[in-house]
Amino acid sequence: MKPSGVVTLLTDFGPADGYSAAMKGVLLTQSPGVVVVDISHDVPRHDIAAGAFVLASAAPYFPRGTVHVAVVDPGVGSHRSAVAVRAQSGWFIGPDNGLLWQAVGESLVDLVSIEQVPGSAQELSSTFHGRDLFAPAAAFIARGGALPDLGPSRKKLTELGVPWAKRSDRGVEGVVIYVDGFGNIITNIRRADLPTAADRVVVKVGETLIRGLVSCYSDVRPGMLCSLIGSENLLEIAVTEGDAASRLGASRGTPVVCRAIRKG
Amino acid sequence: MKPSGVVTLLTDFGPADGYSAAMKGVLLTQSPGVVVVDISHDVPRHDIAAGAFVLASAAPYFPRGTVHVAVVDPGVGSHRSAVAVRAQSGWFIGPDNGLLWQAVGESLVDLVSIEQVPGSAQELSSTFHGRDLFAPAAAFIARGGALPDLGPSRKKLTELGVPWAKRSDRGVEGVVIYVDGFGNIITNIRRADLPTAADRVVVKVGETLIRGLVSCYSDVRPGMLCSLIGSENLLEIAVTEGDAASRLGASRGTPVVCRAIRKG
Amino acid sequence: MKPSGVVTLLTDFGPADGYSAAMKGVLLTQSPGVVVVDISHDVPRHDIAAGAFVLASAAPYFPRGTVHVAVVDPGVGSHRSAVAVRAQSGWFIGPDNGLLWQAVGESLVDLVSIEQVPGSAQELSSTFHGRDLFAPAAAFIARGGALPDLGPSRKKLTELGVPWAKRSDRGVEGVVIYVDGFGNIITNIRRADLPTAADRVVVKVGETLIRGLVSCYSDVRPGMLCSLIGSENLLEIAVTEGDAASRLGASRGTPVVCRAIRKG
Repeated sequence: MKPSGVVTLLTDFGPADGYSAAMKGVLLTQSPGVVVVDISHDVPRHDIAAGAFVLASAAPYFPRGTVHVAVVDPGVGSHRSAVAVRAQSGWFIGPDNGLLWQAVGESLVDLVSIEQVPGSAQELSSTFHGRDLFAPAAAFIARGGALPDLGPSRKKLTELGVPWAKRSDRGVEGVVIYVDGFGNIITNIRRADLPTAADRVVVKVGETLIRGLVSCYSDVRPGMLCSLIGSENLLEIAVTEGDAASRLGASRGTPVVCRAIRKG
Repeated sequence: MKPSGVVTLLTDFGPADGYSAAMKGVLLTQSPGVVVVDISHDVPRHDIAAGAFVLASAAPYFPRGTVHVAVVDPGVGSHRSAVAVRAQSGWFIGPDNGLLWQAVGESLVDLVSIEQVPGSAQELSSTFHGRDLFAPAAAFIARGGALPDLGPSRKKLTELGVPWAKRSDRGVEGVVIYVDGFGNIITNIRRADLPTAADRVVVKVGETLIRGLVSCYSDVRPGMLCSLIGSENLLEIAVTEGDAASRLGASRGTPVVCRAIRKG
Repeated sequence: MKPSGVVTLLTDFGPADGYSAAMKGVLLTQSPGVVVVDISHDVPRHDIAAGAFVLASAAPYFPRGTVHVAVVDPGVGSHRSAVAVRAQSGWFIGPDNGLLWQAVGESLVDLVSIEQVPGSAQELSSTFHGRDLFAPAAAFIARGGALPDLGPSRKKLTELGVPWAKRSDRGVEGVVIYVDGFGNIITNIRRADLPTAADRVVVKVGETLIRGLVSCYSDVRPGMLCSLIGSENLLEIAVTEGDAASRLGASRGTPVVCRAIRKG
């Protein structure tokens, strides 16, 4: 696999400060000509699970050989490891705190701890590894560097579990795993988990029941609740042109149960 | 007209999620080397009129042959059409819900419904046409594809009217068409609509009167209201280093009347 | 020094409007192939000091020969000058209101007032010099233009002082100079200003005392206050996984005193 020349960034640095720009400067200095693309810098602060979801939802669409740098890193400077992963589709670089696991999934090919970056004179601060360690490591990979030159091999990437929904007597029992900016509620219930045909499904969030699945938001009138299979192939609860999460008081971890409508 | 190699994006997806990044990934995968530029991803959710204004204010400054992709699309997956427009200055791709009309204006050369994208294996979700339909169509155009290969010709683009101000006995009667992030109030009153010399104009917003036009914000002291011709050549009401829209309680549709000061 | 082909943008235009995109369009039109990188568009409105800090914190990481365009410009269209600076590491373009001073520092090589931009047909509005003057000037420099062709030489750049902390009987007396998006409090006390060894320092913000310096945020438990040397080599006060500025009610200008712990 050759580098695609594209490096993506995902952080919780927010839009106002110069932190993500400093990372871009380092990338463009140490790997001239690289194309830097923002996935998001507005992951909620320190929210590793949200960052993991966003990374996993966007990374698959990038060219093979893209280098993905992700920094949601409350443990920066402490004993958590810095890692670089070679996956089947590209590289992933960041703290080993679970952030990368969902995007890498089963496609891990090789994994190292980052201990030095050949050719980088960047001094290592103890508070900003995005600029001083991860960006230089990404630039090194983007210009054709080999993973083993960054540090010793590791066996396992820290897992951050998002277990899929389970079947029980009550139906398919899942949870909310992400709320997007529209207020759409995304669950861990996959299309294949659905117990029955779409028109015979009832979805329960808290005490609220939603009958049937629609195929798109505008199948119901603005302001109405609906369930559908979203763009990640996961069961999603939405309010057309509204905010379902606020309406239902749902957030990550809220239980969602899906069952077949009983006859009669 | 040859593609410039630049593709712009305008959406209401917000900064936090991976949606706009997924579109960028598709563009870079299906049209390697393309330069993707964000116009805005912070159009107010589902606000087609605001998106139309922002697109029309930025698109004219891009190189001839740029492909503009715009997605403010509450009707995604429903019966609204997906369209690709060839205009005199570039291409415009998005839902046919009025979003493109203001930017395309009188410069429309050719128009098709997007029904398939040659060479794209992207599966079509019913909730995310930005990623699955519009980005592939833009990539196709950006690599030199021809409009008719996307689908059949259409006659008309859906109009989203922003009628210009009108003269009446009371003066020039207009409305607020956009409030920018500074709180500046932008109206549909053009420089040429002004009834008289700048120093003899009085502008009325609600019950508030503003006398005379200044030439720049800092012509009055911080905190003072003023009227001026803004960078879009439209009459604008501002508070120097402050927020005019909050001060005056003005929003899109608020009437603004402009008349000559009476002698005596 | 040759142009690197990279142009950065820093403004207070916010994320929603088309203003920063119009600047990018002008840059890509007038200097095809240039790589435009956002430093930030979310500098607090009209806050020249915050913009100056962010620019100075990110600019040094960009390739030599980068053109930095900065627009936080409450005086646009008035008598303030527009300037272009050649510094040792690159070029800086913007209003001469103090915004550029901190980034340019001692490295100024040449300085001109921008009075015309050769080859630019952009008409000059009185409210949007970012689009009509600064972006064309940056494009001119990025394609190899010479500083003197933009206008006459100037002697001095407007200074915006951030005096370093001073020693007194009470210890090292400094102030807060920036609060970042995490709520971390950044001061004007440099590593070299510290009176003594890290474990013998006490930092006072308002009535709050913090004993000792840690080396990274996670050296203390989440929710705990700590002091450390941050990534700019300045004394920083943080709450681990929390917001120190809100906790302490600190903002730019709040006094911070640092002294050695007295022996018991």
